[in-house]
Amino acid sequence: MTIPMDAKDELPAPSRRRFLRETGALMGGAVVGGLASGEALAASDTVGAGNLPPDIPEWMKTPGEAMGSQPYGTPSRFEHGVVKNISKTLPQYLSASGRTPLGDLDGIITPNGLFYERHHGGVPAIDPAQHRLMVHGLVDKPLIFTMEDIRRFPSQSRIHFLECSGNPVYTKPYGKTASDLVGLLSCAEWTGVSLKLVLQEAGLQPAAQWVVAEGADAAALTRSIPLEKCLDDAMLVYSQNGERLRPQQGYPLRLLLPGFEGNMNVKWLRRLHVTSEPAYSREETSKYTDLMPDGSAREFTFYMEAKSIITRPSGGQRLGSPGFHEISGIAWSGHGKIKRVDVSLDDGQSWHEAELQEPVLTRALTRFRLPWQWDGKPAVIQSRATDETGYVQPTLAELLAVRGLNSFYHNNAIWPWRIADDGEVTNAAA
Amino acid sequence: MTIPMDAKDELPAPSRRRFLRETGALMGGAVVGGLASGEALAASDTVGAGNLPPDIPEWMKTPGEAMGSQPYGTPSRFEHGVVKNISKTLPQYLSASGRTPLGDLDGIITPNGLFYERHHGGVPAIDPAQHRLMVHGLVDKPLIFTMEDIRRFPSQSRIHFLECSGNPVYTKPYGKTASDLVGLLSCAEWTGVSLKLVLQEAGLQPAAQWVVAEGADAAALTRSIPLEKCLDDAMLVYSQNGERLRPQQGYPLRLLLPGFEGNMNVKWLRRLHVTSEPAYSREETSKYTDLMPDGSAREFTFYMEAKSIITRPSGGQRLGSPGFHEISGIAWSGHGKIKRVDVSLDDGQSWHEAELQEPVLTRALTRFRLPWQWDGKPAVIQSRATDETGYVQPTLAELLAVRGLNSFYHNNAIWPWRIADDGEVTNAAA
Repeated sequence: MTIPMDAKDELPAPSRRRFLRETGALMGGAVVGGLASGEALAASDTVGAGNLPPDIPEWMKTPGEAMGSQPYGTPSRFEHGVVKNISKTLPQYLSASGRTPLGDLDGIITPNGLFYERHHGGVPAIDPAQHRLMVHGLVDKPLIFTMEDIRRFPSQSRIHFLECSGNPVYTKPYGKTASDLVGLLSCAEWTGVSLKLVLQEAGLQPAAQWVVAEGADAAALTRSIPLEKCLDDAMLVYSQNGERLRPQQGYPLRLLLPGFEGNMNVKWLRRLHVTSEPAYSREETSKYTDLMPDGSAREFTFYMEAKSIITRPSGGQRLGSPGFHEISGIAWSGHGKIKRVDVSLDDGQSWHEAELQEPVLTRALTRFRLPWQWDGKPAVIQSRATDETGYVQPTLAELLAVRGLNSFYHNNAIWPWRIADDGEVTNAAA
Repeated sequence: MTIPMDAKDELPAPSRRRFLRETGALMGGAVVGGLASGEALAASDTVGAGNLPPDIPEWMKTPGEAMGSQPYGTPSRFEHGVVKNISKTLPQYLSASGRTPLGDLDGIITPNGLFYERHHGGVPAIDPAQHRLMVHGLVDKPLIFTMEDIRRFPSQSRIHFLECSGNPVYTKPYGKTASDLVGLLSCAEWTGVSLKLVLQEAGLQPAAQWVVAEGADAAALTRSIPLEKCLDDAMLVYSQNGERLRPQQGYPLRLLLPGFEGNMNVKWLRRLHVTSEPAYSREETSKYTDLMPDGSAREFTFYMEAKSIITRPSGGQRLGSPGFHEISGIAWSGHGKIKRVDVSLDDGQSWHEAELQEPVLTRALTRFRLPWQWDGKPAVIQSRATDETGYVQPTLAELLAVRGLNSFYHNNAIWPWRIADDGEVTNAAA
């Protein structure tokens, strides 16, 4: 064991000369459209004579807010507009939704306060000490678990996205912002128990093929999950981004089925009924099934297909001036990892491969970025995701050609933004 | 491009028989001390005749809370005790700290509301439209940036830990909980701009060796950063876990020096002065320097060395009963990735290698886990981290033998917990 005694000595020998050689070339090599070597990227002002610092701001002249006033922190009051985007098209008392403000966010983690929510009977206030999970049906030993029991199992944590299957619905390309379009989408680090392990405790009988999950909300939302998924990467989740689940995300316990449509990830989970057939529950018949052009019903559409959207710049934002801008967005696939994202800056005529934020995680949001030199002229920009299965995100026209005009769910079409010559960004498909 | 038409058909052929063969063996192979095949891990009750579900709880009988009451979400009221752990040993008005409740958290991401804070002049309320960053000194072109300018640069997001250098201090092994001991530690996904890129805009002169960073708080906290770090992985950060920085974490802009002691990651960043020598600022002389046994001053102790702590079970918690328990904790190193974590269950006599949560990220928290069969007898448990440089976390005795009794910062000693026969967990070194 060695204990470093002088961290200063540990720094590698300076390689500043190498850095200075890179200067200028660094940006030019990475920018679509090119950036002249040495051209200022961004600076409001150069400093005047004497290199005087800027004026001392008012907030340095008196002590700031004391500790202890906020034992659980909140965002700055200057960010009061960054909140969930609450749908005005749903009756908000029972069947409600609040979208993540994707255009205001960076990276891949969604903070818990802005995680999207969608519920069908309001949000129950559940005392975890009173909550129970029952596992019964085609099992050797039906069991009831308290939350303390669940916490006794070995745990695991993984980062995964969650997305509502109606994100957006097909009924005419509506919405002004990225949040309006695909804000029923978020991503978090989830902690819980392998569902396989819990089912193993009960002992599966040979006829078992499905697990019917029921929530403890007033809607008793019920979905049938194929056993194969339950024995793969499914989890019973109690924590999200480190802390316990928020009530809107299923406190104290939810099902997590990575890559499957949001409503199957049953919240406030109280019952797992192991069966040989699906339940054909209300949420599998009156909802979450699509009418196809040939008159058949497309049901049990588990997977959220590969998809992406540019969040910056996106609808409702404005480019302040021509010159360098970074194009940034998110991509995701229920089938695994995102393999590549291409961005078009000329209304789909040509495409440029974007850089993916590392590490690329399976069934998680993947941030992509592309440097861009905007010439100040009108433009249409859009992104197109490809996942590790080779599946390519379709255009809306391609999707409608297959799904017809009566489909409602699983719209994973490419979404273009129009940039006007004044920099205003709007929905190019609206 | 293919569009899956029936997701049900895409599921791989069932391999349930294989799963059934694994049953029983699964846990036994992973548990220290062994778990009898088929032994119930955890279940409060088996279900009685007729497989009746549990009673319908009250919260299913009436609709839950409506959407819209919380456009920015908060935790469940049943989690009201999970808040920052506010130090009672500091005058909380000016020089203050609030610790992350590590024993209550899972995974590696710290939610923003519970991210630790440490400040020296209170928390300023800064209007981002008024905030400026000046880069001057040994540069070709001194520059002043608005927040809008900073946002124009190419962005990057990375997950890194932040830790206060006095976490804990050496003055007698105090504290009851993991939070009391090392709660000045958190981890988030940060988004911002490469500092190298910003310095490149100003143009470094040949004599440049240090960058002196100043905060816009009432303390004008000032630290000198070696240029090598500024040209490596340093960032100017504006977002944390997706949303804008919280005021306590430096809103609207902070320096991030992955792996360096917390106070150097200057918050509310307003000035970067490029120099040939360090500033020897107040925070580099009256604080953040240690007196060594030979009378010399150990200064500029940038790196946070490899460290770990068991968070579950940890001080203040209680094991409900003998039998299976998972031991879980966090490890981290300012020098890079965690390579392994060993856990001792017998007061340091023998060690077992724990499982590391994937992906293991550089200069980020790494969650470790070890299954354990507790026999109900008193035990002392502890964890020991090794990082990718081969450095091994020392015991407190080993550390004191080198650092002497006047050291205050950079205590990265192993921390043991004592488990009594009634399951109560306490600080074994107190």
